[in-house]
Amino acid sequence: MSRIRLGMVGGGNDAFIGGVHRIASRIDDRYELVAGALSSTPEKSRASGEALGLPRVYDDYKQMAQREARRKDGIEAVSIVTPNHVHYQAAREFLKRGIHVICDKPLTSTLADAKKLVKAAESSDALFILTHNYTGYPMVRQARGMVAGGEIGAVRVVQVEYPQDWLSVEQDFKQAAWRTDPNQSGAGGSTGDIGTHAFNLACFVTGLEVESLCADIQAFVPGRQVDDNAHVMLRFSGGARGMLWCSQVAPGNENALKLRVYGEKGGLEWAQEDPNYLWFTPFGEPKRLITRNGAGAGEAAARVSRVPPGHPEGYLEGFANIYSEAAEAIVAARDGRPAPDGVLYPTISDGLKGVQFVSACVKSSGRDAAWVRLDH
Amino acid sequence: MSRIRLGMVGGGNDAFIGGVHRIASRIDDRYELVAGALSSTPEKSRASGEALGLPRVYDDYKQMAQREARRKDGIEAVSIVTPNHVHYQAAREFLKRGIHVICDKPLTSTLADAKKLVKAAESSDALFILTHNYTGYPMVRQARGMVAGGEIGAVRVVQVEYPQDWLSVEQDFKQAAWRTDPNQSGAGGSTGDIGTHAFNLACFVTGLEVESLCADIQAFVPGRQVDDNAHVMLRFSGGARGMLWCSQVAPGNENALKLRVYGEKGGLEWAQEDPNYLWFTPFGEPKRLITRNGAGAGEAAARVSRVPPGHPEGYLEGFANIYSEAAEAIVAARDGRPAPDGVLYPTISDGLKGVQFVSACVKSSGRDAAWVRLDH
Amino acid sequence: MSRIRLGMVGGGNDAFIGGVHRIASRIDDRYELVAGALSSTPEKSRASGEALGLPRVYDDYKQMAQREARRKDGIEAVSIVTPNHVHYQAAREFLKRGIHVICDKPLTSTLADAKKLVKAAESSDALFILTHNYTGYPMVRQARGMVAGGEIGAVRVVQVEYPQDWLSVEQDFKQAAWRTDPNQSGAGGSTGDIGTHAFNLACFVTGLEVESLCADIQAFVPGRQVDDNAHVMLRFSGGARGMLWCSQVAPGNENALKLRVYGEKGGLEWAQEDPNYLWFTPFGEPKRLITRNGAGAGEAAARVSRVPPGHPEGYLEGFANIYSEAAEAIVAARDGRPAPDGVLYPTISDGLKGVQFVSACVKSSGRDAAWVRLDH
Amino acid sequence: MSRIRLGMVGGGNDAFIGGVHRIASRIDDRYELVAGALSSTPEKSRASGEALGLPRVYDDYKQMAQREARRKDGIEAVSIVTPNHVHYQAAREFLKRGIHVICDKPLTSTLADAKKLVKAAESSDALFILTHNYTGYPMVRQARGMVAGGEIGAVRVVQVEYPQDWLSVEQDFKQAAWRTDPNQSGAGGSTGDIGTHAFNLACFVTGLEVESLCADIQAFVPGRQVDDNAHVMLRFSGGARGMLWCSQVAPGNENALKLRVYGEKGGLEWAQEDPNYLWFTPFGEPKRLITRNGAGAGEAAARVSRVPPGHPEGYLEGFANIYSEAAEAIVAARDGRPAPDGVLYPTISDGLKGVQFVSACVKSSGRDAAWVRLDH
Repeated sequence: MSRIRLGMVGGGNDAFIGGVHRIASRIDDRYELVAGALSSTPEKSRASGEALGLPRVYDDYKQMAQREARRKDGIEAVSIVTPNHVHYQAAREFLKRGIHVICDKPLTSTLADAKKLVKAAESSDALFILTHNYTGYPMVRQARGMVAGGEIGAVRVVQVEYPQDWLSVEQDFKQAAWRTDPNQSGAGGSTGDIGTHAFNLACFVTGLEVESLCADIQAFVPGRQVDDNAHVMLRFSGGARGMLWCSQVAPGNENALKLRVYGEKGGLEWAQEDPNYLWFTPFGEPKRLITRNGAGAGEAAARVSRVPPGHPEGYLEGFANIYSEAAEAIVAARDGRPAPDGVLYPTISDGLKGVQFVSACVKSSGRDAAWVRLDH
Repeated sequence: MSRIRLGMVGGGNDAFIGGVHRIASRIDDRYELVAGALSSTPEKSRASGEALGLPRVYDDYKQMAQREARRKDGIEAVSIVTPNHVHYQAAREFLKRGIHVICDKPLTSTLADAKKLVKAAESSDALFILTHNYTGYPMVRQARGMVAGGEIGAVRVVQVEYPQDWLSVEQDFKQAAWRTDPNQSGAGGSTGDIGTHAFNLACFVTGLEVESLCADIQAFVPGRQVDDNAHVMLRFSGGARGMLWCSQVAPGNENALKLRVYGEKGGLEWAQEDPNYLWFTPFGEPKRLITRNGAGAGEAAARVSRVPPGHPEGYLEGFANIYSEAAEAIVAARDGRPAPDGVLYPTISDGLKGVQFVSACVKSSGRDAAWVRLDH
Repeated sequence: MSRIRLGMVGGGNDAFIGGVHRIASRIDDRYELVAGALSSTPEKSRASGEALGLPRVYDDYKQMAQREARRKDGIEAVSIVTPNHVHYQAAREFLKRGIHVICDKPLTSTLADAKKLVKAAESSDALFILTHNYTGYPMVRQARGMVAGGEIGAVRVVQVEYPQDWLSVEQDFKQAAWRTDPNQSGAGGSTGDIGTHAFNLACFVTGLEVESLCADIQAFVPGRQVDDNAHVMLRFSGGARGMLWCSQVAPGNENALKLRVYGEKGGLEWAQEDPNYLWFTPFGEPKRLITRNGAGAGEAAARVSRVPPGHPEGYLEGFANIYSEAAEAIVAARDGRPAPDGVLYPTISDGLKGVQFVSACVKSSGRDAAWVRLDH
Repeated sequence: MSRIRLGMVGGGNDAFIGGVHRIASRIDDRYELVAGALSSTPEKSRASGEALGLPRVYDDYKQMAQREARRKDGIEAVSIVTPNHVHYQAAREFLKRGIHVICDKPLTSTLADAKKLVKAAESSDALFILTHNYTGYPMVRQARGMVAGGEIGAVRVVQVEYPQDWLSVEQDFKQAAWRTDPNQSGAGGSTGDIGTHAFNLACFVTGLEVESLCADIQAFVPGRQVDDNAHVMLRFSGGARGMLWCSQVAPGNENALKLRVYGEKGGLEWAQEDPNYLWFTPFGEPKRLITRNGAGAGEAAARVSRVPPGHPEGYLEGFANIYSEAAEAIVAARDGRPAPDGVLYPTISDGLKGVQFVSACVKSSGRDAAWVRLDH
């Protein structure tokens, strides 16, 4: 089976997430990166492309979309790893040419853009994959499978949090700069950058939708223009309730995404920094530590796992799982087949919900934490 | 120094917390339990008193207050360990006779009672100690001392939670029955029983007041008349924000009280089930694990600790610390002295705030999670 | 039931373990401390006795034994909490007068003394209780019960360790001084002080005897006259094998006693610093976290536990369990009854084995780690 | 920089470690797998090669070595991932043709083979890299750097262990079969398969050599022909002492490799299953949790790490680091340069020591745990 020809928008020399996408695409050997428009200027793009040894480097994403679409051996898929405000325009160029899009989150920097992008995707034959990478962790899949299988009963309470500490003080390096600039990141700061991950994870694992939320968001660091901390209460379809906390000003937290789900019959707990463990407590029984590929872990986890239990897999492997799931769907699309059963990745619909989440947080907080519907 | 003569109201054979108070009073050998009105009927009271070998057993607390007050060797202090709705009437009887009161939390079952009890305490010479026992843990003292000493800078974010699981299903044994009966527990279920502890702990450690809150409270178990889960957002004096979660329906949680405090310069994390550890992260430095009496722990912890680091102290020792702090104050009062510097215990003022917290949660939730001031 | 009248030898003002014994004796209200010979000089003994408010203070243990034996209300039991080299002489005085002895470990400072003390105990009607306090922890009892109940099958491998760090450098305060003086502590340093605990714990939980051992012991701190680190391999009756490590020079370890037992069908793991947890893995199933009084914990733990799951009990409660077990036996002896079923405490026989362990370690190490039988 | 052309011996369809090597070689994009002799029969080799889409598949390693050596675009390096007894013969074929060898551990199944292979390597210009992959973990590099930098002072005590549980019962699938067959694995079972890893890790981090050891090894499962559990005491150059435990019969352990190193000034602790953490305790200060790429971690870790702190890297990334270090050396060799400063991977000399370790364990145990020199 030949590798999928992949292009990349963004991800130049000084970016973090571009390198992650590249490794993720390589781990299971399903992609070959052959083209890029890697930076905001042609010069930088070229320099980064050379450093990576890319066969084809373009001045900008539009040029890349046009030219690659014309080649017989043009890219079949593109990874978009730019700051948020570029996602919509870039994705549209590829979608309208039938090139599959693998896009970093949040979907867009504005709700208006998100809605337009949904339409663009609907009118394209190309697939749209959103890299909410945490859904690729095997034990997250395991948790989702257990909830769906009724092992904790009807969900009552969802506690999800994603604290970090790196923006506890003013920072001006590139990664910080665009994330705290509303023109590039959108109206949400922590809510957009990490709150969307927490939100998506809670929905992914529980299989529930958030109907409404009320939020109290803050910018603690003087002069910061977007939120760096957010407290959110959630009401799910079916009556479950939840809390979401995201923060970039919580010293001692690196990427401490954590999800806890409690149902009528049991509870589940998972933490991103120790991702090979899933705690499961059937009510009235001792807590059990289910390990990746270990006893008690099932097929949902095993199909996205590579090594035996006790050998930790991490962030890159979870990210790679999104790429490999996408590869299954892309190769099926090549052949005109539907994606195989069980293939699972975040879609543009999840992306829209994430942007709605950010928008609802901002709106609710502006109204003194009034309840706001997600589909406001 | 002679032991303090102590009486007890409540705490009969089938109670849980009465036994805890008795052990707590013994650990540092500062009290001698000499009288009791241990149950709701004279017969049961007598049976429990005999089982304990108490010198003097009374039919009810009123009789005990009257007769002990007349004795030369009458009790100097009384522990009130009944269900919540009895606290006010019982405490008043002893306060008006100058007998110090050590009362379990929450202060009362209604806000009206709490306000009347504050007045009763104000017009008495007797001391009033509220057993928010978690404030007695050495590492909680350590945390409070570090916040006060500026080690984490101005507080920004407070995350506090107290999940349990024992009421995940309907329960009808005695401990569950009164806690889920609004006539005995008050309007709050989980909010009153454990939410008040979480609330008190957050204020104790940070030294901050909660100005207002908004709450979404639930009774998940069918037929339950009081909340068994509560989500609360907090606004503190000085601008700090927080979240409080308490639950009795979270399978896998026993008494998982946990406090996390984040300031401009660092973060602190403490968990009741592993109470001998305090995590401290100065921003930009590695996380440090401070252990009770170990390196990095200071005098605030050492003065309420008994054994070397690595030998765990637990719930009973923390509880005993409240008793021993009270003993310092009571013995000083005996001699007409003020309590020595550093003596620290929760007071009736903390008790009032706790009842205000419950009342505000119920009120806010009734208004669809509108912000309610604590002093509503 | 009247309290047991207790005396104490050692445990003066600047001792650590004396205070522990006193608290342990109080927690369950089964003892009343009424007499003491608390220090090595009459003056110090008196000062300490006064500070404690003891009714009767003696110049030395011999005087105490003689005079108390003559009183109608004389002590029924004595706690011996001196440095090791005093144990034998002191215990003998009380045993020969029919006063029960509760003695700190190790039993004696020499093997010869240990053997003589065994004879003294055999020819006395009095009970002999050795405070290997770690056997009092509820989850240690739980582990022992599970091994005995066959839940892990025949034991194959035992890993036990007790590292500390406080003697990583030369120390000259009192607690360190006698423990590193072979005239007071005996030939073993870390082996006697903490190795005996580890050894006893392994045997207590597995129900097995150690038949022989080979040891490599060291004194790392220059000038130290007794071992401060020991590596030991163990051969148990029935074919199980084990390793024991004890150290006082392992920075980062406070009192990190840890036991792991692996059998044909499962494994158990317990750590003193987090004593309310017992890890149990039935082979081929997920690891389970059994908590004190929680789901999966049984009667063996419950009968020596006081508070609900999730409320930690610690070192003092575990120590108190030895005292309370002893109290059951002492009260039964008062009445001429055998101790009730289930009463369990370390005996002089365990004490002898502990001294044999130290002696075998020293002997083996002297022979370049040759195997030495315990009953050498 | 063009990718290194890589071949593979072993690693057919049903092997575990071959897949690991292939992913490890891809993660940093330094290799391209172009040839293989993947299985013990030509048919199986061909089937596996086709499944992988390999350009060139051979009947056996000898054929591959001969033919590839003749090609202009022949492989520059070969990964040998067969059972142990094949390593020597296979490696020799490539070494003598100047093809770099990346070989799985243990080096060989016999000490005689190991010594011959050392000679073969000495007389070849090709590099020899042994995949003691745990030395590739960033926090292992961090630990090694800290020891070398004097942060814990002179090493006194080393505790290393590698327990597993998968061979607690008789197993007959392929992975188990060859590992328990002395003709394929060599005289050591657990000692060879995992004990060598533990041994290598202890030496790698401390920078010390083991001079002698005494061992007590067992085969607990009836009928097993090689050890499945081993207890070993170690004497290091310079006076440090240690213990090593490896086991395949310890239920509840998956790949629980753990290293603890204690020096005059501090201690370090690392565990493979949670590899992004390194515990560091400077004596007399609180324990510190150093995280990969987090505060307190240095360049030694950063140069072999890919993502920010809090995003876990795992087993495959650690393995990839060995491949990427090797790539640095191989590319330098291409150009006739020495490997750049800082490049670090296990060599054939480490391999010889590992086989000596196994041999010494077997020999010592056969002499009732007498001390045996490593270079016996």
